[in-house]
Amino acid sequence: MSYNNYGQPPHGGYGGQQPGYGQQQQGYGGQQGGYAQQPAYGAPHGGYGGGGGGGGYAGGFGTPSRAPPPGIDPALFNKFQEVSRGDEAISLLELQEALRNANNRNFDLDTVKYLVSTFDTNHDGIIGIHEFVGVWNYIRDWQNAVSQIDNDKSGFIDRNELQQGLTAFGIRWTPEIVDLVLRKYSVEDTTGRLFNQGPSIPFDRFMRACVTLKKVQEAVDQRSHGAGQVQFTQDDLMKFVLSLP
Amino acid sequence: MSYNNYGQPPHGGYGGQQPGYGQQQQGYGGQQGGYAQQPAYGAPHGGYGGGGGGGGYAGGFGTPSRAPPPGIDPALFNKFQEVSRGDEAISLLELQEALRNANNRNFDLDTVKYLVSTFDTNHDGIIGIHEFVGVWNYIRDWQNAVSQIDNDKSGFIDRNELQQGLTAFGIRWTPEIVDLVLRKYSVEDTTGRLFNQGPSIPFDRFMRACVTLKKVQEAVDQRSHGAGQVQFTQDDLMKFVLSLP
Repeated sequence: MSYNNYGQPPHGGYGGQQPGYGQQQQGYGGQQGGYAQQPAYGAPHGGYGGGGGGGGYAGGFGTPSRAPPPGIDPALFNKFQEVSRGDEAISLLELQEALRNANNRNFDLDTVKYLVSTFDTNHDGIIGIHEFVGVWNYIRDWQNAVSQIDNDKSGFIDRNELQQGLTAFGIRWTPEIVDLVLRKYSVEDTTGRLFNQGPSIPFDRFMRACVTLKKVQEAVDQRSHGAGQVQFTQDDLMKFVLSLP
Repeated sequence: MSYNNYGQPPHGGYGGQQPGYGQQQQGYGGQQGGYAQQPAYGAPHGGYGGGGGGGGYAGGFGTPSRAPPPGIDPALFNKFQEVSRGDEAISLLELQEALRNANNRNFDLDTVKYLVSTFDTNHDGIIGIHEFVGVWNYIRDWQNAVSQIDNDKSGFIDRNELQQGLTAFGIRWTPEIVDLVLRKYSVEDTTGRLFNQGPSIPFDRFMRACVTLKKVQEAVDQRSHGAGQVQFTQDDLMKFVLSLP
């Protein structure tokens, strides 16, 4: 699997927190919380990581219609078959339908497009089983990283958690940048409760924000050479902006 | 109503195409096509502008619970009450729920956030009736402009229509820019049909793309002074990117 470094969730500081693959096989239903679970299967939607549930996977999804390819976790293959609706190729909109935040709202189309463009290694516009493993592990890694900063386990990142997260993920920020990130990526929850408490960012938009901020920071580092000014040609600036998720 | 120039749909070349307000009162259901109509009311979703239907509004929405404020079209006030679920204040998510593309998919949250940030003139985070008039007219103006370039009336902008639209809207493009815009803003329709025909962009994402491209172009014009290089301080680049919808 090849994907660029922007896309990697930060591992520094969280060593040992990512569950191994074996562990994941045991505890899927509980570990994944509200993500990548559809409500029809009764997965908990209260937050990420550490959720209860236990239970595991096989009971929830029925029997796979055929055996998984060599090296593929049967539970993950089962999930793949379900998301792909049996044709074993996941389209952009099928993936969006399968990916949900803690409040059961789908991931943004832009987040899903970013995932597909990153993991669709054969560039056929759809996600096969091996590409799906990449998507799944990537989300799981982000989920584990984010669970470390989501102190109240609300499933949303508030202002304090955002500052902590940006620092932990190596992103330079000022109070003004934090305000702009909150303004751009926050969302009300369906009850309006979080809106009253101040802006909060759901998991998928937080992931997208971090990737964007990392890309901007990398452009700064590559183009300014410490001179304090970032230079683009006119065309490059347009291309740079259009490359952001 | 005050909103900045980025947000204005291009009027050049389309003079006389915008329906007057009086006209709009007569023909709401038909004129608005798939936008800002909920499927429960049987609005046509096939495309924008020129849709049949006639019929008008009052039959579909029942009687407003009270009279509209002075100067507000009763049909639009009725729509406002419906979208706000009776409390006469439209939240971000209520507005998203009300705004749909030709394939009945909701506008992206980022498009809706852009609309709210542009028209929430008292900055209370919700849309009152006078702000709603601004949102409504803005979408209608964009819809009329886009209907001029959506040659096949599919409700989606394909590659040829995109090139035509960018030119009409005064946006400089190269084939590489067109490719990047299509990659970033296109979406499959629910049937996969459009995906097979090549990438296409739904109305709301096209509107967002145009606003972004206009903002980048304005930054180029303001910062390069014809020198062929665009300069930002490090902080400014981050702020600029976070200001894009």
